[in-house]
Parts: sequence; structure tokens; C-alpha cells
Amino acid sequence: MNNIPYKIYLNEDEMPKAWYNLRADMKNKPAPLLNPGTHQPMKAEELYPVFCEELVKQELDNDTPYFQIPDEVFNFYKMYRPSPLVRAYCLEKALGTPAKIYYKFEGNNTSGSHKLNSAIAQAYYAKKQGLKGVTTETGAGQWGTALSMACAYLGLDCKVYMVKVSYEQKPFRREVMRTYGASVTPSPSMTTEVGKRILEAHPGTTGSLGCAISEAVEAATSVEGYRYVLGSVLNQVLLHQSIIGLETEAALKKYDIKPDMIIGCAGGGSNLGGLIAPFMRDKILGKSDCRIIAVEPASCPSFTRGKYAYDFCDTGMVCPLAKMYTLGSDFIPAPNHAGGLRYHGMSSVLSQLYDDGLMEAVAVPQTEVFKAAERFARVEGILPAPESSHAIKVAIDEAEKCRETGEEKTIVFGLTGTGYFDMVAYEKFHDGKMEDYVPTDEELAASAAKLPRV
Amino acid sequence: MNNIPYKIYLNEDEMPKAWYNLRADMKNKPAPLLNPGTHQPMKAEELYPVFCEELVKQELDNDTPYFQIPDEVFNFYKMYRPSPLVRAYCLEKALGTPAKIYYKFEGNNTSGSHKLNSAIAQAYYAKKQGLKGVTTETGAGQWGTALSMACAYLGLDCKVYMVKVSYEQKPFRREVMRTYGASVTPSPSMTTEVGKRILEAHPGTTGSLGCAISEAVEAATSVEGYRYVLGSVLNQVLLHQSIIGLETEAALKKYDIKPDMIIGCAGGGSNLGGLIAPFMRDKILGKSDCRIIAVEPASCPSFTRGKYAYDFCDTGMVCPLAKMYTLGSDFIPAPNHAGGLRYHGMSSVLSQLYDDGLMEAVAVPQTEVFKAAERFARVEGILPAPESSHAIKVAIDEAEKCRETGEEKTIVFGLTGTGYFDMVAYEKFHDGKMEDYVPTDEELAASAAKLPRV
Repeated sequence: MNNIPYKIYLNEDEMPKAWYNLRADMKNKPAPLLNPGTHQPMKAEELYPVFCEELVKQELDNDTPYFQIPDEVFNFYKMYRPSPLVRAYCLEKALGTPAKIYYKFEGNNTSGSHKLNSAIAQAYYAKKQGLKGVTTETGAGQWGTALSMACAYLGLDCKVYMVKVSYEQKPFRREVMRTYGASVTPSPSMTTEVGKRILEAHPGTTGSLGCAISEAVEAATSVEGYRYVLGSVLNQVLLHQSIIGLETEAALKKYDIKPDMIIGCAGGGSNLGGLIAPFMRDKILGKSDCRIIAVEPASCPSFTRGKYAYDFCDTGMVCPLAKMYTLGSDFIPAPNHAGGLRYHGMSSVLSQLYDDGLMEAVAVPQTEVFKAAERFARVEGILPAPESSHAIKVAIDEAEKCRETGEEKTIVFGLTGTGYFDMVAYEKFHDGKMEDYVPTDEELAASAAKLPRV
Repeated sequence: MNNIPYKIYLNEDEMPKAWYNLRADMKNKPAPLLNPGTHQPMKAEELYPVFCEELVKQELDNDTPYFQIPDEVFNFYKMYRPSPLVRAYCLEKALGTPAKIYYKFEGNNTSGSHKLNSAIAQAYYAKKQGLKGVTTETGAGQWGTALSMACAYLGLDCKVYMVKVSYEQKPFRREVMRTYGASVTPSPSMTTEVGKRILEAHPGTTGSLGCAISEAVEAATSVEGYRYVLGSVLNQVLLHQSIIGLETEAALKKYDIKPDMIIGCAGGGSNLGGLIAPFMRDKILGKSDCRIIAVEPASCPSFTRGKYAYDFCDTGMVCPLAKMYTLGSDFIPAPNHAGGLRYHGMSSVLSQLYDDGLMEAVAVPQTEVFKAAERFARVEGILPAPESSHAIKVAIDEAEKCRETGEEKTIVFGLTGTGYFDMVAYEKFHDGKMEDYVPTDEELAASAAKLPRV
């Protein structure tokens, strides 16, 4: 045993004081959001009816490298951060690998994931703007829980549209949100015009993030004193989530550890974009040749099988157009796909980096992910979220390659959250009832054919 | 804001290397276990068929003040320990109290509670003795989960008898245990002779810890290579749980903080006994006049309304007799009481200390506990377990008294775990369907009348 502890914790005074905006260092900037009517870049004023003003500024700013974390947000962070960077000694031993495996664990808070990092920031700016409340969507429920917690803390109203399939599979998620005073509506619902339209066109649909976003945006813009907030995809979210990467970087530096690869799961990109931010900067600046690997579900493979094109962010087509790797806003992943990572598109920042060849992507089937999850849980103790387990799966694969080659590579992956509310999926897995679903080329071609012409 | 951080973490090299055995410093030792047939003190050899040998030694040792933590247990501890001592700045602010509130948070591990501290120790000694596996009971499911995790880590078989009411209220707990490879049987069951007897005498019973213990003991002693392990009540468990108190003591000393009171919830006493160990030592040695407060549910009030007498530890009366504050081994708390803290008796160590006037006890009604839980969750973020929320309730009460008097008291309480698997109870609370149940004097007299005559 060398002298690296099981868990590397930063002290409070070592916590990053500012978020890092990777866009400032990108040579090819992410493509701008477009007005869906005019196809012209969205101006700040056009976004103000939907988003808080400060957040719009953060969204559109491709130049400022650092944004100071407001004191109130920093104090909230201190309730659950810094999060540990864990050396997976037990997993290494179980795999018999010479690789050194680390994971940044973001699950030690009640939302169960990293989502709280951006939730408190967005709620803070809403409060600062004097709003009454915010609306949002949630898929697996982690983001909705996080936002409920942030709103409870700041005394803001919180309305959550929860993808119907998750609402039904995860009744307890709803209760957690209620504990924090939020209202939760299964989506699509009859409470919005766009929800009614979607239900008419797709009766019996189990919903998707794209639908829920449309409903939440409508709910925000049709009432005085509300704005919409989003837990992933947006540039501002990646900015807030950079706290994950900055802490990881600081923890690694404390022990002079240089990663050979950084692995993260990718749905809309909130975790991955945050985790990799400082490492990608070093790569862009030619200071590092660290591999950066996005892992997505084979059932919703935006990076590996999507198109890089402008698309709607939501199913109802009420949001701006974003250029991203996308399966088409019409794409709804199979309901038997568990957990999050169900979004049809991918962060514009990450899409550009992927297109520039600065990162890799791999799609993995669901049952393999749960196998890796259980294997990890039994030796490392933590019961991982299905989302996070995508990263575990690939980290284990890479560590096993090292066992073959004898290379002592340093692998860092993001363990974004815990699976305590995913026991229905684990049960299916235990009972051998979990299926792997992979969309056919025809299905993907059909939804891609509906991409807007820009 | 002063310079005490939100979370005081010890470094790995500051972690306690030995468990502390409070019995060594007690002037009045806890009464010995008695053979239920002869009423003579149990000898080690009589306990070996049920418990692992090393654990029997720990159980009977009233003299050795420290037991070295074995390396393998210590390494496991490092996966989730040291646990943070949190300064509840946000709760203090919300209460407007001059009191300084700290809580030792044991919920940052998949078992969701402090139970893992003893589970890994007990599983380790079972493994060391060359056993195939262990059997146990679980009430709310925290202990069963903890033991499953420990057994998965060490490659031991694990059979859990789960109190039927919890098994039904908490289906996901079962799945977590299965993830760690354990088998889970609702108790009372037809798989044991004692289970059959109990079901015959009480058809439709929702079970109790006392029943489940009887079944687990029978399951251990009727098969080669198995022993029984228990998550609370026993002296050995309090010994292992002293890690909580020792870490708390070390964290407080780092900032020269002297507690005025230590508050912990009490079911069988595992958490409370561990948390208070070093503080009680100082009190016994006349070095401190810190108040020590046990909080129990009004529905299962062993300290405040029980008798201090020899009683069976289990409903089936197969276990040794222990002298303790007890409601009678026949007492089964109302099924509408949520969570743990359902045990009819109390640790012999704590019972003796209480009888000696070294600690106080208070019983609180369930709805008040959930009110405190929700209040705490909204400002401190963490969703607490119902058990832990008993301590929160009294900590808030004490902090509010300080608001009246203006005293800047330092309150330390044990936040033993998280409530992620207790959402059925939270839902009842939100829906106004939670009831407070308090046993009548007649009920208690009836079960006390069946205490064995020793």
C-alpha cells in the first residue's frame, strides 16, 4: 500500500472559488443557439423571458474563463462539498489490475448526484432576480430532487415535470421532492398546451425529457414571476459543474497524480462536461495527452450514432435550436431503458469537442452496465446509480486491458451518484428480466429525417 | 462566521486505531448474560455455538479498555470513514438560536447508517474463524444491508430475517441486500421451528425484532459453519460502534470544542452507546459534566417506561437473559410506527448507566419526529432516517431553549443515517396519515408481567 489515502478530501479553503468556463479556451467555440423562427443567433433579450438574466449571460459568454462562485452558493456547497476523490483500491485488487483507479464521488448528498452543483446556482440567480419560483423537468429524478433541495433552502417555489416512465418507476423520488416542498407532475400532462398536443399525437407515451422540457418552459413563461431552469445540456450547467473537475484536479495535484484517461457517463453532458473541464483545457493547450472518454447507453447513442446538426432541445419545439450530436428531438428511448441518460441530444460544448477529435465516445448495453454496477458495489461498498455505472463499465474494461498489457495506467472516472432510487431496475436485473435495447438504423434515420433545416 | 468549517473531517492517519470498551471504566459493570435454564452467568463455551469466538471474548470482557481494530476492518473503514462531524450552521440560522449545533453524520455509505461499523467487524471475525456464513435479523433494514455489504466484501454467505412489516414497507431494501448477494426472508416465517410456533400463537403478526432474532439464531445453530450476528444491544456492538464517539471526540478536540450535551436516538443502543463512549468515560472519571440524552420513540419507550430487569433478548426465548430496561420480550410495537427503534429492550451497558443516573432519556411522538426531520432536511440538505430524526427533534428542542435563555450551548447529536428507504413513512406524514401511538399502562403492565423470574 502506498501513501495515497482511500479518499482524498480537500479542505474547505482548498475548494475552488470560481467556476471555470471551458469555452474561453476552446479554439472552435460551440455553435450559438438559434432563434427557431429566424435561424439567427439568439440574443440575450430573447432568452430573458425563459431564463434568469445572470444565467443567460453565463450561457452566452464564450470568453470569460472564470466566474466567481457567489458566497451564498459557496456556503451551500460547503454543506456537501468538497466531494471525495476515492482511490478504488478494493476494485483494483478484485480486478487484479496494475491500473490505478480513482473516482470522483458526487453521490454524498440527498439529491444523490452531482445535479445539486448547478441547482443551487440556478436557484440562487432566480432568487437574486426576485422571482417567485422556477419550473423544470426531471428524468430519473436526480435533477428534480436537487432543484427541490436548492429551492427549499432559498425559499423559492419549485414546479417539476417528471418524465412519466420515471414517475411511475420511482414513486419515492416524488416523495423526496415533496419533502423539500416541490410540486411534481408526470409528463406529458394535461396541465399545459404542449402536453395536450403531445398526448394527442402519441397517446400512451411514457414521456421523454424533450416532452417534459416543453411543458416546463410553457409553465414558466405563462405565469408571472417564474423562469425555467435546466439540469443539463446548457453551457451554464457545464460551467457550474466545472466544480467537479476543478476539485478533481486539485485533489490529484495534492498527490502529484497524472491521469491517463478521464471517463464519464454522458446523457446531456452535465457531469462529463464538468468533470473534464480543466483536463480538456490542458489538452487544448497542448499540455496533456490524457484520453477523455464519454460513455453513453446503447439505447440512446447521441455521440456514437447521432448527427452533428442543429436540432430542437425539446419535443414541443418551443426552445431555441442548438447544434449538437442528436438523435432527433422526436427520438424517445425505449421505456425499458433504466435511469437517466435518455436525452436525445448532447451539450453543444461537448459536441464541438467531440467533433474536433478531442474526446472519444463509446456506447454500452444496459445489462453490461448493471453487471459492472453490482461488481463495483460488492467491493467498493457504494451502490451506484445506473447512469454512473456506464462510466464504471468502461473504467473496468480499461483496467482489464491494463491487466493484459501490464500497463500501470491511471484511470479517473466520475461516479455521479447513488442508485438508492433505482431498485426497480436492479430488481429486473437480478430477476433476469432486464433487456438490452438498441435502436435500429431505420429508427434513427426516421427521427434524423425530422431534423430542422438550418 | 467563525473559523470552524461546515464539516470537520479527520485525516486517515487521525482515525482511531482501536475500539474503546466503556465497560472497562464503568464503576458498576453491566449485569452478565444469564443462562435461561440455570440462571447462572453464561460462560464463553456456552456462547460459542451461537457467536464467533472472538466476539464472545469481546462480549464478556469488562476489563480491557482498548481492542485493536484488525487491519482488514480498518481498511474497510477507510472506504467510508472517517465520517464528517458537521456544524449545522444552516439549522442554527433557521432556528435563530445562539446554540452551536454539531452532528456526527454516519449516513454516507450504502447501508445508509452507522450499522456498517459493527457489521464489518463481526463478518471479519466470522471469516477469520473459517465459517461459511452468518445469519441475522433486520428491522428497518439498515443492519441487514450493512451485513450484506460486509459479507459481500469478505466472500461470506449472509442470511437475513427481516421483520415482516419492514419487508413489506421497504421492498427496495430487499433488493439492495440482494445486490450484495444476501438472501432475505420475511419474519416470522415457516422456515424455522420458532417461526412456525410464533405464527401459530400470533397469526397475522407483522413481526418484531424479537421474533426475527429467534429465527436467525435457529438458522445459525441448525446448520454447520454458520453463526449468528446481531446489530445492536450486545456489548460487542457498542464496542465496535465506539469508533463514532472516538472520531467525534477527535474532531471536537481539533477545534477545542467542549460539548454541553450529546444526544442520540436509542433503539437497542448501538448508535448511542458508540457515540457517547468517550464522553461518558470523562463523565465517569469526573472530568466532564456533559449531559447525555437518549431519545426513544413514545411507541416503544424502554428507558422511560420499561422495567430494569432480566429479560429474554428474543421473542422465542432461545437467547440468554440480559438485564436491561425492557418492555418485555412479548411487546410488539404498533405496526404504524415507522423505521427502527422497535426493540423491546436496551443495551445492558446503557441500562446500567441510565440506572446509575449518568444519562437522561426522553420519549418523543412520531409525528413530531417527522416534523423535525423535514425541517432539518430543508435547511441542512440531508434527508434523515426516521430513527436519526428522534435525535434531531430533541436537538432542536434544546436549541430552542437556548434561544429563550440566550445560552450558547454546544449541542452534539448523532445523525445515524439517511431516510432514502423510508419514503412510505414520509408519504404518510405528508398526506397527514401518520399516527402517534403510545402504549397504554395496561399494555405495558401485561407484557411486563411476563418477565422471567430471576
